[in-house]
Amino acid sequence: MNTAPAPARPAQLLALDWGTSSLRGALLDAQGTVLDERAFARGILTVPPGGFAEVFDASFGDWARTGVPLCLISGMAGSKQGWAEAPYCPCPAGFADLAGQLRWIEHSSLAIPVAIVPGLRCESELQADGLPPVPDVMRGEEVQIFGAIRHTGRTNGIFVLPGTHSKWAEVQDGRVRQFQTFMTGEFFALLSQHSLLARSILADAPFDPAAFEQGVARARSGAGLLHNAFGTRTLSLFERMAAPALASYLSGLVIGEELRARHLQPGAELVLVGSSTLVQRYSHALSQHGARIQALGAEATWAGLHALAQHIDHHDHT
Amino acid sequence: MNTAPAPARPAQLLALDWGTSSLRGALLDAQGTVLDERAFARGILTVPPGGFAEVFDASFGDWARTGVPLCLISGMAGSKQGWAEAPYCPCPAGFADLAGQLRWIEHSSLAIPVAIVPGLRCESELQADGLPPVPDVMRGEEVQIFGAIRHTGRTNGIFVLPGTHSKWAEVQDGRVRQFQTFMTGEFFALLSQHSLLARSILADAPFDPAAFEQGVARARSGAGLLHNAFGTRTLSLFERMAAPALASYLSGLVIGEELRARHLQPGAELVLVGSSTLVQRYSHALSQHGARIQALGAEATWAGLHALAQHIDHHDHT
Repeated sequence: MNTAPAPARPAQLLALDWGTSSLRGALLDAQGTVLDERAFARGILTVPPGGFAEVFDASFGDWARTGVPLCLISGMAGSKQGWAEAPYCPCPAGFADLAGQLRWIEHSSLAIPVAIVPGLRCESELQADGLPPVPDVMRGEEVQIFGAIRHTGRTNGIFVLPGTHSKWAEVQDGRVRQFQTFMTGEFFALLSQHSLLARSILADAPFDPAAFEQGVARARSGAGLLHNAFGTRTLSLFERMAAPALASYLSGLVIGEELRARHLQPGAELVLVGSSTLVQRYSHALSQHGARIQALGAEATWAGLHALAQHIDHHDHT
Repeated sequence: MNTAPAPARPAQLLALDWGTSSLRGALLDAQGTVLDERAFARGILTVPPGGFAEVFDASFGDWARTGVPLCLISGMAGSKQGWAEAPYCPCPAGFADLAGQLRWIEHSSLAIPVAIVPGLRCESELQADGLPPVPDVMRGEEVQIFGAIRHTGRTNGIFVLPGTHSKWAEVQDGRVRQFQTFMTGEFFALLSQHSLLARSILADAPFDPAAFEQGVARARSGAGLLHNAFGTRTLSLFERMAAPALASYLSGLVIGEELRARHLQPGAELVLVGSSTLVQRYSHALSQHGARIQALGAEATWAGLHALAQHIDHHDHT
């Protein structure tokens, strides 16, 4: 009896998520299944000008030379400080818009065609009192949204992507019509590490759901984060909250402030895409606001790049 | 004709404002007029444990030995990390409450009686959804409020003290009934120095009233600071606002957020106490909200300590 190994499924896409602080990559087959994955601490901030092709080759050159026909990159690699600028695509935008505005990389050392996916931009719709519109931008999240659309089959609705800069996107007929950024993760980091509150907060304490919930409820009262954040200090000062609970309380205050600003209707249905830690916290907070959630993990990035690859006639570009 | 110099008015009070980062002092006569003033970069954070009497003597010992009968100190010198803890006085609180809860310093080297003024504490009144109350505290501002009450003759109304941690106090019949802290100055410093926005903002740029006003108006739209702050970045990214205007815009966003949370009624009358820079910005922002303002400077601290001294029969305590 022959015991030859099953033939390896050929990789059809080298998918990269190249962000500010990390570089992740995956080999996907024709169905979008992940064959292999790697991650490096080689975010764009660590790459010297002109050094992107070299970092790409050192990190993924062996994969690129196995015959995979295409590499797609999402994230900050397409920013002015990245490998090559892929100008933001204006909203409303769908798969075809992204596919039509890829930035193809010209570099003699590359073993395969490499393209960078553009980010999205939109204009704020809150133009009260005749104020000029304020633009908003995303890079990388657009691919996660399109991955989540494919994964859930939902072509209409609100998609929430929590993070350092959380995004709330309104999807209509499979296109991103409008979105808003909230600096939630960054505010939490600033307050817990660099503010007066840093003295009281134990950053390494385990998550405390009851304290988190209390923070979300407090944020709903509408007194605002500038006031509520100070309560983290005074609750500690008068020993009304145990030190290990303070970080979770502050996290609830900040995430709760994001939700308050969105004026959610009870029964609102949302698609939530993010890391397991953030999905847990946002699910908790959104439930307190009466929202119903469908949650997805980081696989949305690979699903999005895989879906996008199917829209590309990349042989035209090589 | 005799040309003898006019007799020097005798000092009746050595008034000190000993805060986190600075130490200011003044000699006042019986009418509260400032005879002399000094300031040192000797905030409580620079004083080693047990070293307060020594710093006091090095900074004000010569004044203390001129026969001035009393020294009153307000500010963080009365905190746990200060010279001696003066426990917070609960609201509602007036002159007599502060005077009755002074913390007298026992130290053999002191040439005169020295007392520290307690801060105030209150409980938040926003207890929506059965949330437990959150305490609030001030140290130093209570003296400014009582000084402003004396100076303006207003024994009822809202007193606003902008700063790193702004205070909004409700005064009723000459007593502080309730107050709220907003971490406005600290949020501005964190965002302009430590966040993503720090890359775009020119901290030294001159104040730009139009950009500031636009920030205040944007904050009124209610989208929240977590979202609006990101606009500082995108306005810069798309060159819709000149780099020197961004710091003023962000300042308007943060101060505007404080005002939004207070839900001011048009025509509201406020007493504003603070440095000239902050009084200028808050006057501007409060006018946009239709409020009417009576403004006072830092002299309120000396007026408050002077008024308080008149309530003290300090010979009982020496």
